[in-house]
Amino acid sequence: MPGNSFGQLFRITTFGESHGAGIGVVIDGCPAGLEIDTEAVQQELNRRRPGQSEITSPRNEKDEVEFLSGLFEGKSTGAPLAMFIRNQDQRPGDYRHLQEGWRPGHADFTYDQKYGFRDHRGGGRSSARETAARVMAGAVAKQLLAKQHIHIAAYVSSVADIHVQAPYTSLDLSTTESTMVRCPEADTAARMIQLIEKVRDEGDTVGGIITCVAFGAPAGLGEPVFHKLQADLAGAMLSINAAKGFEIGSGFKGTEMRGSQHNDQFAAEVDPAGHPRFRTLTNHSGGIQGGISNGADIVFRVAFKPVSTLLQTQESVDKEGKTVNLEGKGRHDPCVLPRAVPIVEAMCALVLTDHLLLNRNARV
Amino acid sequence: MPGNSFGQLFRITTFGESHGAGIGVVIDGCPAGLEIDTEAVQQELNRRRPGQSEITSPRNEKDEVEFLSGLFEGKSTGAPLAMFIRNQDQRPGDYRHLQEGWRPGHADFTYDQKYGFRDHRGGGRSSARETAARVMAGAVAKQLLAKQHIHIAAYVSSVADIHVQAPYTSLDLSTTESTMVRCPEADTAARMIQLIEKVRDEGDTVGGIITCVAFGAPAGLGEPVFHKLQADLAGAMLSINAAKGFEIGSGFKGTEMRGSQHNDQFAAEVDPAGHPRFRTLTNHSGGIQGGISNGADIVFRVAFKPVSTLLQTQESVDKEGKTVNLEGKGRHDPCVLPRAVPIVEAMCALVLTDHLLLNRNARV
Amino acid sequence: MPGNSFGQLFRITTFGESHGAGIGVVIDGCPAGLEIDTEAVQQELNRRRPGQSEITSPRNEKDEVEFLSGLFEGKSTGAPLAMFIRNQDQRPGDYRHLQEGWRPGHADFTYDQKYGFRDHRGGGRSSARETAARVMAGAVAKQLLAKQHIHIAAYVSSVADIHVQAPYTSLDLSTTESTMVRCPEADTAARMIQLIEKVRDEGDTVGGIITCVAFGAPAGLGEPVFHKLQADLAGAMLSINAAKGFEIGSGFKGTEMRGSQHNDQFAAEVDPAGHPRFRTLTNHSGGIQGGISNGADIVFRVAFKPVSTLLQTQESVDKEGKTVNLEGKGRHDPCVLPRAVPIVEAMCALVLTDHLLLNRNARV
Amino acid sequence: MPGNSFGQLFRITTFGESHGAGIGVVIDGCPAGLEIDTEAVQQELNRRRPGQSEITSPRNEKDEVEFLSGLFEGKSTGAPLAMFIRNQDQRPGDYRHLQEGWRPGHADFTYDQKYGFRDHRGGGRSSARETAARVMAGAVAKQLLAKQHIHIAAYVSSVADIHVQAPYTSLDLSTTESTMVRCPEADTAARMIQLIEKVRDEGDTVGGIITCVAFGAPAGLGEPVFHKLQADLAGAMLSINAAKGFEIGSGFKGTEMRGSQHNDQFAAEVDPAGHPRFRTLTNHSGGIQGGISNGADIVFRVAFKPVSTLLQTQESVDKEGKTVNLEGKGRHDPCVLPRAVPIVEAMCALVLTDHLLLNRNARV
Repeated sequence: MPGNSFGQLFRITTFGESHGAGIGVVIDGCPAGLEIDTEAVQQELNRRRPGQSEITSPRNEKDEVEFLSGLFEGKSTGAPLAMFIRNQDQRPGDYRHLQEGWRPGHADFTYDQKYGFRDHRGGGRSSARETAARVMAGAVAKQLLAKQHIHIAAYVSSVADIHVQAPYTSLDLSTTESTMVRCPEADTAARMIQLIEKVRDEGDTVGGIITCVAFGAPAGLGEPVFHKLQADLAGAMLSINAAKGFEIGSGFKGTEMRGSQHNDQFAAEVDPAGHPRFRTLTNHSGGIQGGISNGADIVFRVAFKPVSTLLQTQESVDKEGKTVNLEGKGRHDPCVLPRAVPIVEAMCALVLTDHLLLNRNARV
Repeated sequence: MPGNSFGQLFRITTFGESHGAGIGVVIDGCPAGLEIDTEAVQQELNRRRPGQSEITSPRNEKDEVEFLSGLFEGKSTGAPLAMFIRNQDQRPGDYRHLQEGWRPGHADFTYDQKYGFRDHRGGGRSSARETAARVMAGAVAKQLLAKQHIHIAAYVSSVADIHVQAPYTSLDLSTTESTMVRCPEADTAARMIQLIEKVRDEGDTVGGIITCVAFGAPAGLGEPVFHKLQADLAGAMLSINAAKGFEIGSGFKGTEMRGSQHNDQFAAEVDPAGHPRFRTLTNHSGGIQGGISNGADIVFRVAFKPVSTLLQTQESVDKEGKTVNLEGKGRHDPCVLPRAVPIVEAMCALVLTDHLLLNRNARV
Repeated sequence: MPGNSFGQLFRITTFGESHGAGIGVVIDGCPAGLEIDTEAVQQELNRRRPGQSEITSPRNEKDEVEFLSGLFEGKSTGAPLAMFIRNQDQRPGDYRHLQEGWRPGHADFTYDQKYGFRDHRGGGRSSARETAARVMAGAVAKQLLAKQHIHIAAYVSSVADIHVQAPYTSLDLSTTESTMVRCPEADTAARMIQLIEKVRDEGDTVGGIITCVAFGAPAGLGEPVFHKLQADLAGAMLSINAAKGFEIGSGFKGTEMRGSQHNDQFAAEVDPAGHPRFRTLTNHSGGIQGGISNGADIVFRVAFKPVSTLLQTQESVDKEGKTVNLEGKGRHDPCVLPRAVPIVEAMCALVLTDHLLLNRNARV
Repeated sequence: MPGNSFGQLFRITTFGESHGAGIGVVIDGCPAGLEIDTEAVQQELNRRRPGQSEITSPRNEKDEVEFLSGLFEGKSTGAPLAMFIRNQDQRPGDYRHLQEGWRPGHADFTYDQKYGFRDHRGGGRSSARETAARVMAGAVAKQLLAKQHIHIAAYVSSVADIHVQAPYTSLDLSTTESTMVRCPEADTAARMIQLIEKVRDEGDTVGGIITCVAFGAPAGLGEPVFHKLQADLAGAMLSINAAKGFEIGSGFKGTEMRGSQHNDQFAAEVDPAGHPRFRTLTNHSGGIQGGISNGADIVFRVAFKPVSTLLQTQESVDKEGKTVNLEGKGRHDPCVLPRAVPIVEAMCALVLTDHLLLNRNARV
């Protein structure tokens, strides 16, 4: 299957370029009868759109979603749900100089190698603008998850070497949106913003880490062997532009623990009806054991490299092998993290929704 | 699609349990005309098999591969290649006590939740014995890659807090197999072995990190948007038992760099025929840009948690919610890392082979 | 995978309803570098559109295609090609009465049963208007096939009991478009038109058979076992609205032959370069043996039932089980065959294109 | 996806050749908790095996199934169910002469063209022996369907020009197995057998038609647009060796009806609980409308060409283009129909099972 679809039963296909007609997505497999809050889809897009704050790209796209199909009297019909946003604030002239040399850290060189040529306007299909399609689809997935009382909350847990110190369980995640850097630890957020502004003024960029938590997922999601829940999450996250790493639960740090420390001990309580209810006393596993959710919070982290587009002159080469100097132009983000928060949430929502549907067939 | 298949064009389906008839794999999509070195497949299995050294599980499985189909006069015919290894050293009695309580860190609880019951003998399908199927398939994939001069080498780069210090470019990876811990830095290997033996004697276990490098991959592998090469690698790696994290190139550490440091500058040389040849002066990207290989070494790291099976008594609960004490019994590895090296290589080989075939359709 | 995608490597996803915003398709997997003749896409749509002649539905849709993505300077880029046509001549009022009873022969009842409710405007997703999306995608596929000198020609070979008598090899298929019924045997065409007009005036409808021939397909297309070329063609054809049967080569009549008559004997010629060139002396196989094309013409026939929408009053029931009388209203075709010709060709083109790409991986 | 898998959620992958180690199948996606009657699987194999009667191939294969995985204490566990039968009565010597010339009507030529060479022993992968794998998988599917009160019955409705005259509704399908030709109309069966014996004695072969009925399927199975139930059935049937045609309901004959005759009128009854219950007064649709089952019997017919292997000398050519005479040798069926009955049922069972699982996600 070609690369522009994601998911098995709740399956999305995205299309569009940063400087073409627009960006769209088709969801195939949304169960019928879901009341779709189209305004909520728009709000998720607003969280991702450029120009939303002083620390994001000044490109000014309204990103207004149009529903092209699949809705009837406000409900999903079982038919494909197509959504589209027309591009508006295009300035292809900004990119004319990019015909020449390959921008370091970008997909210019590899697209040329793979396809023989490329749409050089703003990166074409490799532009992060493509992620708007994911956010639209993810917004629908979130509504389906909400009916099962599953909620997803991501936040920026580090920018460069400024890290949130508290575990997520000590944070008030409802405050994430209150800072423009989407970090729920107020003083850390302030330092992050300060750093991003400094870096922006230097024409440089900076990376960081997003932590994502899914609350309320029932035990049983995930398909052995190759579609373990963490495998699908990892694939989803590493498909996001600029993502360089993924870890679930204890992650890389867990490699330094002993098994006797790392194992999450099971405990049982009795619910009001007299039935046993199970949980683990710790959550090093990140809510997934043997590839299947265990009912605990699903917790993972995603690393993002610093944005490749600089407002500095960079040396590169062109197709003929000649050295060229690329001027830093265009409108870009000094730090992708704040706008990546809704993208991480969207991809998480898509994975969980897909597994919710897959899991309906676990038993006879 | 259910969870026991992997890959799109070079597609494997695995089956079998640790304590059933055996473990098998079907490869569908192996191009015709590949001379298959069946002995090389066996050798890869030998690298994974238990009982191979003093620091691995004493379970003694010969793991002899039988080719069930797809070969004619030593060559692949285009038909499915099925391989099977019969289980031999089974002692289901060892696991009878596991009917009762859920082992911490294992899939016992989640399988019960998902399926309503489980094959409790040695973990059934969730056993790491399933990875033998991947190693067989990966061994065939490696032979296909070798024809394109692509070679994969993984090694243990950390055990607990003992880390290889040198970058892979300073190591002699041909020495990896010479130590039983599969670490090519001799003195570090010795310390790792010492630690594993100590931990084993305490009935405890320990985790670590595997670094994997693919040499010789051409530019162009990887499919935007959702099947970026790093996305498929991440999904592949996180599908391995006990894997908790993945990072490509600069990974998590790269989040602390500035864009101006992180960007890999392009350079051009002239080849003997007078054509320009391109490379990057650094490789923070890990050989992949925009989801597509750029011709540089593909470098990634995989985190493995400490093995969950301890030779210590652990407290747990049973289905009725009663507290049970699980005795540490059975034959298990104090550290999974040495045996995971061929598994990581196999999954990497499967991903690259799949993308080699996908890439044949990149252009008209 | 949900039901709105078709193909594996040249993969289309369609969306849209007859009375929503419009009808669209995304092609994922079109190789890069194909010069796309957008005008030719429009012409194929014109062959399918209603209102094109006196024997088709008077619904007047211009069906103007807009390319939303995937093109750069006239060429495919390797990114998804999205095409969209906005609906214009909608009269949902025409369908208000359909809220009540289930139209016989339509999908009203089954959609209600499956989804719990339905978009009753003009059949919603079950409308044959959906096939416009297939025609757009098929038009692109045809261009890719043309580069390999593969051409597809379908024609109406029967309407009710009026059958073309000559085999396709005795017909001039270039004349198919010259009659409004798309039958290349002039006198038969005249009788077909006469019948359709008579039936239309009675408020009734009529079915028929389309014969389709693919010229120039090389030997080797088709994937054993489940994706035999005829299997994929059969699945493609039976996915078209109103299709009730498929036969390849000798088809149902061949069941009455002896093996000694039916077997196509091989013969060899010597080409100008002195190499042997093979063909079969007869073509009962329809160009496919063992599921794989043999280089001969690929010939198949598709049966279409009479259109279900009548301009007569029909008795039915509603959800409560009450008898209702459905008046014959709306704008429909007395015979779907002429407009189905480009649809059959499109689906054939999609199957062949997919298999062309799949076949690139047949050998090492 | 390569061609040896079938189904989306109840997904089978088959492997093996007629003259290799054996024939196998892996079912991935069988829900957990299904009690598997392994003896019933064997009985289905017995219905397909050669040597079962005087009018089938004298090749004597016991075809004993071994379950390799996926069962625990008699129940499916959710893990892949692998089944295997070892080949026993192989006489590869019988086929040595086939190295030379291409057998007419067989896959010899096309496999050579596609793959560059072929396993010439008994057709290798193109042998109808492959269908044993489908029968094993179908036997499991039938058990899953039986739990939903869905039953499938196929029978031979014609051999050459000898046709069953009565509609299936007038036949006692429980008598199908009582004649060795699997035709439930006793006198017609006798004439069929007589013809087959005559043709066999002439060294010739004969084709025919199988009618298949699925009883008890609920309304709602089938996925618009490309996975309409009849589309998946058509693809399934045309993937069977020697199948040349498929028709659902009124099929090709229905093309000669008027819409006013063809439309199946809806009627309502009141069930004991006072709820309306719906049915159609006729069943020209074959139980499927708009691609979705309507609760009526699902009825279709499959055309099979006469077997290509004759016990007569046939002229052909070899790779060099030289004329060769192929002697009629080996052990083959004069008529494939009786043994194809369980294969048609198996493929029907696989399609329905897959759609049962898919349909679980039709609604929120």
